[in-house]
Amino acid sequence: MAYKLYYWDGIPGRGEFVRLALEEAGADYVDVAREPDGQEGGTTAMLKLLMDGEGAAIPFAPPFLKDGDLLISHVANILFYLGPKLGLAPEEEDLRFVANGLQLTITDFVTEIHDTHHPIGVSLYHEDQKPEALRRSSDFLSERLPKFLGYFERVLRQNAKGAGHIVGDRLSYVDLSLFQLVEGLRYAFPKAMRSYEANIPRLIALHDAVAMRPNIRNYLASERRLSFNEAGIFRHYPELDQHS
Amino acid sequence: MAYKLYYWDGIPGRGEFVRLALEEAGADYVDVAREPDGQEGGTTAMLKLLMDGEGAAIPFAPPFLKDGDLLISHVANILFYLGPKLGLAPEEEDLRFVANGLQLTITDFVTEIHDTHHPIGVSLYHEDQKPEALRRSSDFLSERLPKFLGYFERVLRQNAKGAGHIVGDRLSYVDLSLFQLVEGLRYAFPKAMRSYEANIPRLIALHDAVAMRPNIRNYLASERRLSFNEAGIFRHYPELDQHS
Repeated sequence: MAYKLYYWDGIPGRGEFVRLALEEAGADYVDVAREPDGQEGGTTAMLKLLMDGEGAAIPFAPPFLKDGDLLISHVANILFYLGPKLGLAPEEEDLRFVANGLQLTITDFVTEIHDTHHPIGVSLYHEDQKPEALRRSSDFLSERLPKFLGYFERVLRQNAKGAGHIVGDRLSYVDLSLFQLVEGLRYAFPKAMRSYEANIPRLIALHDAVAMRPNIRNYLASERRLSFNEAGIFRHYPELDQHS
Repeated sequence: MAYKLYYWDGIPGRGEFVRLALEEAGADYVDVAREPDGQEGGTTAMLKLLMDGEGAAIPFAPPFLKDGDLLISHVANILFYLGPKLGLAPEEEDLRFVANGLQLTITDFVTEIHDTHHPIGVSLYHEDQKPEALRRSSDFLSERLPKFLGYFERVLRQNAKGAGHIVGDRLSYVDLSLFQLVEGLRYAFPKAMRSYEANIPRLIALHDAVAMRPNIRNYLASERRLSFNEAGIFRHYPELDQHS
C-alpha cells in the first residue's frame, strides 16, 4: 500500500525532506495535499485529518505520514521510521540513533532558518517584523550559519568511514536532508553562501553527489519538485542576505 | 554500567527532561558536568568531549548521553533510546513513534519558550533584545501557548485508553516531560498560566499525578533537582508575563 504524505501544497518546506527520501528509494507514495481537493485529497483532506483527529495520534502540524493505520508526525520521526524500510538508514542499530541525532540538528537549524524572516511570531506576516528580521538574520549569518554548517563539515571530516556520507559508509536520509539544506540556503542567502562555501568542501561535495543520483536527478527535473518561494521556510529577501 | 548524562550545570534546562526519566526509573546514572571538575567530570570533561569529538558521533550541543561507547544527542533521541530500557516507552512498536512525535512537539514548544527571551539570537544577552522579547512574548502568550497546551489537552481527551497518560494506558517519558513543561511555564509565566489552566484540566491532572509518584517526589525534594533561574530556558521576567 502506498505511503500517504501530508504537507502544505505550494512550498517545498519541511515536507521536502521526506519527499527526497521517498523519491531516492523509488517508494510508492501519494502527496495527499497536492491531489485534487476533496474528501480523499487536497488541503481539505489534510485539514480534515488535523481537525477531526484520529484518536491520540493526532498530529500538531504537517508534515505527517500515514502508513496503513499508523499516523507519524515530525520530519525526523517520519525519517527514523521510513529509513530502514527504504534502505536509507544505517544497518547498525546504534548508528540509527547517531543518524537521528544529526537529523534533529538539521531540524533545529531549519527552525532557525525559518525564524530569520519570522523572529517575532509565525502568526504574524513577515512584513510586520521586518526590523527584527534584519537583526536576527545578521546574527544568524555571522554566528549560527557558520556554527551549524561547520559542525556538519566536521562530522564528515571525522567520519572514520570517509567523508562521502554523514553516517557510516552508505547513503542515508540524512545525506539527502543535507543536500536540501544547501539548496535552500543557496536560494535564501546566495551572497552569504558564496562567501562561506569554501569552508565546507566536504559538505558541498556531498551535496553534489546527491544531486547526481539518478532518482534524485529525475525527481529534480520533474513537476513533483516544487520551487523555493517566499511562502516557505527558505525565503529570498535580498535585504536579509549578507551585505559586504 | 551507569549512564553518563552531559548537560550544563546550574540550570534544569533541556537536560531535565532526561533526568526525570532516569530518576523515575531509578536508573544508575552520573550527571557528569555536576561532578568535580577535571578530566572525568565537570564542565571541563563535557567540553572536552564536545571539542575533541569521538569520531562522527560528535554532538552539536548538550544534552547528550553516553551508554558505553554509544554517544546520543538531542533530548527526544535520548528518550527514544532510553524509553524501552527504562520501562517508560509504550510496549507496542507503533506507539513508540506516536510517543516520539509528541516528544518532538514538546521540543518545538521548548524552543519557542526559550525564544520568548531570546528572539534575536542565542549569541546575544537577553538585555540586548528586550523590546523584541516583549513583542515575541506577547504573541507567544496569545497564540502559541494556547495552541500547544490545547493540543496536548486534546490528545489526552482523545486517548481511547483514558486521559491518565498521553500515550496508551501506562506512564511514558512523554508524561514526565509534560510535567516539566507545566512546571516551567508556571515559573516563567505565572499570571498567564493562572488564567489559562482552567482550559487544560487533564494536563494539570497528569502533572499532579506525576508529581505524586514516589521516585519523582524524592527526586524533587533532593539536591539533584535544580531550581529554575534566569540562565535557563524557563525564565521569569515579570514584564514578559501576561499583563491583564
